[in-house]
Amino acid sequence: MSFSELDKHYMARAIELAAQGRFTTAPNPNVGSVIVRDGEIVGEGYHRQAGGPHAEVFALRQAEHLASGATCYVTLEPCSHYGRTGPCALALVNAGVKKVVVAMLDPNPLVAGRGIQILQDAGIEVQVGLLEEQARALNPGFLSRMERQKPYIRLKLATSLDGRIALANGKSQWISSPESRSDVQLMRAQAHAILSTATTVLADNARLTVRPEGLAISRLEDGSVRQPIRVILDRSLKLTGRELLFSQNGPIVLVHDKHYKPRFENPQVRFIAVDADELGLNLSELMPVLASENINDLWVEAGAVLAGSLWQAGLVDELIIYQAPVLLGDKAKAMLQLPNYSELCQAQHFVWTSVERLGPDLKLTARLEPCLPE
Amino acid sequence: MSFSELDKHYMARAIELAAQGRFTTAPNPNVGSVIVRDGEIVGEGYHRQAGGPHAEVFALRQAEHLASGATCYVTLEPCSHYGRTGPCALALVNAGVKKVVVAMLDPNPLVAGRGIQILQDAGIEVQVGLLEEQARALNPGFLSRMERQKPYIRLKLATSLDGRIALANGKSQWISSPESRSDVQLMRAQAHAILSTATTVLADNARLTVRPEGLAISRLEDGSVRQPIRVILDRSLKLTGRELLFSQNGPIVLVHDKHYKPRFENPQVRFIAVDADELGLNLSELMPVLASENINDLWVEAGAVLAGSLWQAGLVDELIIYQAPVLLGDKAKAMLQLPNYSELCQAQHFVWTSVERLGPDLKLTARLEPCLPE
Repeated sequence: MSFSELDKHYMARAIELAAQGRFTTAPNPNVGSVIVRDGEIVGEGYHRQAGGPHAEVFALRQAEHLASGATCYVTLEPCSHYGRTGPCALALVNAGVKKVVVAMLDPNPLVAGRGIQILQDAGIEVQVGLLEEQARALNPGFLSRMERQKPYIRLKLATSLDGRIALANGKSQWISSPESRSDVQLMRAQAHAILSTATTVLADNARLTVRPEGLAISRLEDGSVRQPIRVILDRSLKLTGRELLFSQNGPIVLVHDKHYKPRFENPQVRFIAVDADELGLNLSELMPVLASENINDLWVEAGAVLAGSLWQAGLVDELIIYQAPVLLGDKAKAMLQLPNYSELCQAQHFVWTSVERLGPDLKLTARLEPCLPE
Repeated sequence: MSFSELDKHYMARAIELAAQGRFTTAPNPNVGSVIVRDGEIVGEGYHRQAGGPHAEVFALRQAEHLASGATCYVTLEPCSHYGRTGPCALALVNAGVKKVVVAMLDPNPLVAGRGIQILQDAGIEVQVGLLEEQARALNPGFLSRMERQKPYIRLKLATSLDGRIALANGKSQWISSPESRSDVQLMRAQAHAILSTATTVLADNARLTVRPEGLAISRLEDGSVRQPIRVILDRSLKLTGRELLFSQNGPIVLVHDKHYKPRFENPQVRFIAVDADELGLNLSELMPVLASENINDLWVEAGAVLAGSLWQAGLVDELIIYQAPVLLGDKAKAMLQLPNYSELCQAQHFVWTSVERLGPDLKLTARLEPCLPE
């Protein structure tokens, strides 16, 4: 299928709009839409919040009667199901649009081509596949959950140039710069869930919430900041429910060895029991469970042990390193615990997708598995 | 003093020319010169090789009679002394140039303003200080030797993302990519001297020479590649003179504890005895000795011990890291041995001057001390 430069321009705008929902839409995907009539944009919209209107509905509202005979650009196949809102495909039919250009099909089994079918059955011309790669990049987590039944995992580490995350005595505040720490808050705020450990929670008395002060984080309709779900690995259920972590509202998932029994109840806490062996909780078993709990993606903030376990299990999709221009030396704490390799080929190589300067630091991003089918 | 845009343009060209000598001029500085008459470049030159003509001489030869009444741009003060070539200041006077624009004074005590004096005494207009910073950046080593009586030290390390230089079993070939290894050859070829240790020489049976095959390295007049001086720290004089290192022609300096006596003679080898204590050879004592031997700069290729010692002694001027996108884990060998810091403020921070991608790797360059007076 061939698309014009003008088609690309409008779809690029729809993608830009979709990205405006990145702090708020979880567990829903980011979706943007543009309605064009006679070469002019007459309606724009993006999905803001689960339970709220979809992107196409916002765009149709703005276009009003001008939607009739217009072309609609949308980054994800319009939905076909009666969820919290009516099916968007039907709304487009009712508004009388002439043509719909879709960046990608919705892998959600509730949609999966049915949206396209509704449009075509109504005699609307439909084109699919424009800027698909960019549209997919809007929702690696949602796509991972739908297509692979596991969350998309971003492993974040703040290190020195020589790969150390703390001094031997544990001191680590502050290896990275204020600029990097602000960026971490922005990344947290875009995450659907944070993955950490009881060890980290206890050591830092960590709340693991987003501190939005001074940052450009868009809000939910009630004016609050969406806080990521906190998934804490607590093998032997060491947390008592009285830590600072629990003082902040919002869902918490405590993952524990199935041989231990929860010692407290709390309406915001959900316990998930998994198998464990001498190496720890079975993370590969955990991930489909988290996906079935509708968790799209995990932003991992933890120590060298969990980082090493995820890495070795091949579960890391993206590596995000905040590297400070300082050398801490061989006595300081390593960023990643791995087995003692005897050959270099045992170590997994990766590819940088982005290298940025962030104040004095570097922010290095590597993708481990392409989120795109080739 | 104010300079025109045109002045800057010609001086920038002179700096570009000077850089063409970067593989060959040591121990002399890189110098470039442009002669301009009636808005046209009539002569260009750069210093190629110690013992050969200076930049101004090449430019004057090309300009011939057009030098009379012209302006000469030169990146370093013209020399005033009868060295291996006659004084350039006098050559400019004799050629009848009307004006000389100089980027920086020559800190060499044999010159140090006398070149300017000769020109002014002859009634030539002289301007000094145009693009001085860029001109200084041509010769950090020469300037360090002249101004600080010690070589400019570049510490090179090839590491994994987690700051490891080898597996626990010592395997390190190849952590970095072919692109990085080629770049290392280019950096070696520009170094006046390489600093390494007997341990490295023995472990790798290393020659520590430039392998120019396939690389854009300019040659000496006899067609050969200038090989850096090899400075090897050999505290207890373990090297026998029969290692591969000695099979390659070119000067070698063996630095040893003064309590040990050389066991062999070799016309290419010079022994330097220094103090040593339980931490090793006294590197701070060594550096002025190397400067007095006319060594401008050291390109350090060594293990974590020497790297750590130089770093701690505050001797490193530039840090050059080839960082491969691989994680080797906490059992692998650290890049730098440092004391066990108890506070983060004990660790020295630095500033990246350059962040480049080199094939799959990153090349990170930090400057530790400004080579410019502020």
